[in-house]
Amino acid sequence: MAVHFKHVVIIGVGLIGGSLGMVIRRKALADQVTGVGRRVENLKTAVALGAIDRYVADPQEAVRGADLVVLATPVDTYERHLQEWAHCLSMGAIVSDVGSVKGRLVEQSESAMPPGVHFVGAHPIAGKEKTGVAAGSDQLFNGARCIQTPTKQSDSTALARVRQLWEEAGSIVLTMDPYVHDQILGAVSHLPHVAAFALMNALAELRDQQVPSLDLAGHSGGGLRDTTRIAASSPEMWRDIFLWNRDNVVSYIDRYTRALDELKQLIKAGDAAGIEKSLERAKGEREKLSSAAPSHP
Amino acid sequence: MAVHFKHVVIIGVGLIGGSLGMVIRRKALADQVTGVGRRVENLKTAVALGAIDRYVADPQEAVRGADLVVLATPVDTYERHLQEWAHCLSMGAIVSDVGSVKGRLVEQSESAMPPGVHFVGAHPIAGKEKTGVAAGSDQLFNGARCIQTPTKQSDSTALARVRQLWEEAGSIVLTMDPYVHDQILGAVSHLPHVAAFALMNALAELRDQQVPSLDLAGHSGGGLRDTTRIAASSPEMWRDIFLWNRDNVVSYIDRYTRALDELKQLIKAGDAAGIEKSLERAKGEREKLSSAAPSHP
Repeated sequence: MAVHFKHVVIIGVGLIGGSLGMVIRRKALADQVTGVGRRVENLKTAVALGAIDRYVADPQEAVRGADLVVLATPVDTYERHLQEWAHCLSMGAIVSDVGSVKGRLVEQSESAMPPGVHFVGAHPIAGKEKTGVAAGSDQLFNGARCIQTPTKQSDSTALARVRQLWEEAGSIVLTMDPYVHDQILGAVSHLPHVAAFALMNALAELRDQQVPSLDLAGHSGGGLRDTTRIAASSPEMWRDIFLWNRDNVVSYIDRYTRALDELKQLIKAGDAAGIEKSLERAKGEREKLSSAAPSHP
Repeated sequence: MAVHFKHVVIIGVGLIGGSLGMVIRRKALADQVTGVGRRVENLKTAVALGAIDRYVADPQEAVRGADLVVLATPVDTYERHLQEWAHCLSMGAIVSDVGSVKGRLVEQSESAMPPGVHFVGAHPIAGKEKTGVAAGSDQLFNGARCIQTPTKQSDSTALARVRQLWEEAGSIVLTMDPYVHDQILGAVSHLPHVAAFALMNALAELRDQQVPSLDLAGHSGGGLRDTTRIAASSPEMWRDIFLWNRDNVVSYIDRYTRALDELKQLIKAGDAAGIEKSLERAKGEREKLSSAAPSHP
């Protein structure tokens, strides 16, 4: 039998929160889905799109009696949210999330739980260049990965119920330590985002200060567009991710800068064999990615 | 009336040279198309695919009497090729090319022309992740840009004839000074390639030295795959491009490294507003690219 909740509350009904609501309502995985958010217009849209049954303005009122509360707001807001309403949760309730960073965020969220309430960290990996519930779909997570990040404190029943929820959404659920999650996502997702954001900024400066005839839109092609696609991602969301995964991201930028400098020194020295060896290595590593399965940002 | 040549010789019958041959033969833009190359097997394939009428082993014999010779080999080989056979060219012949760098390469190639022979630099911008005549098509250049790089020495009739040839191939022909070409392509193409190659190498090192559980293929998604797609490009070709556009590429890597360092310092300092401003700028610049027209690497 499919997992079932009495009352699910989604805090932050955007692309991810809203899509999860659509899955739960479409598959009748809960008796009731309530949305909480800052903007009433957005919540009305969420009701119209079938992402939630209803919304309430007061989160304390919303979470009272809920058996699952999902944080789907920017990760930097978790602490404030939990301080506001965690004490209203009933014994046995589960708080989960959809944040792109884990580590310290999971640790802090766990320690904000009242007795008998269980936190389960989760990171559904799904298209985040778009934002807003209007871009949502009950198919968003279908075939995508969702990383669950249990700790020593985790409750096994709560973990199993949240896992089942994501499996109902069509996700492939992986398990990782929260800090390992941040090391790995820092590498495959956060560093590429830094690279893309910085590349766009470097090219804009190049145009403004050095090559006035450079028309980025007119002269660019598929290579530049692919390489920088993720630079169009949400600045608010990525600001928080970079800050919450600060140590890894800073250390990875250093490593990337060293790789760039190594290639630069080879080019500067005219070391044809050295350049070719470096590019061969990169090509070999890139070709191993091609068979990789589901997409995420 | 369409442009017409008596005898076109293509030196290097790979993806670009072979596709140009297919256009010329399909549209009957020449009485005869001869291929010259290192590998007989490849030349046989080129004949079978209709890219050339015939091939000859001796380039001196091939170019004698030709009215158009197209260099479609790695740019680092131009000097050796021209030394070998330029003196065999007839008065009025045109030598053109398809190289991804221009600048000094055009200057050197021009000065290698015997009296009465005209060099016309051209850079068709078309899918170069694939290689080989077997991946060629007479549609490869259709809708793509081709940059012609005239100089003070250029012959206006030769320029017009080469322009017409690329227009027959369906290309949109732009004109740029050879050195400006290298500044602009250095920005929109060469720097993104450096960024992608170095990112793959940095991630491989991260896995090998710091995060052993990192499975680049298993953990990566669309973001990393897009950002590094062009890292699968030909090491041989890109080695030559980086070396022939060395000064621009080195200076642009420095600028990119500074942009990365700026973002790193903001993250390290926990400057949320500063990070958001930097990402907003990048996003704004990236969104202006989206409307850009034809694709190229």
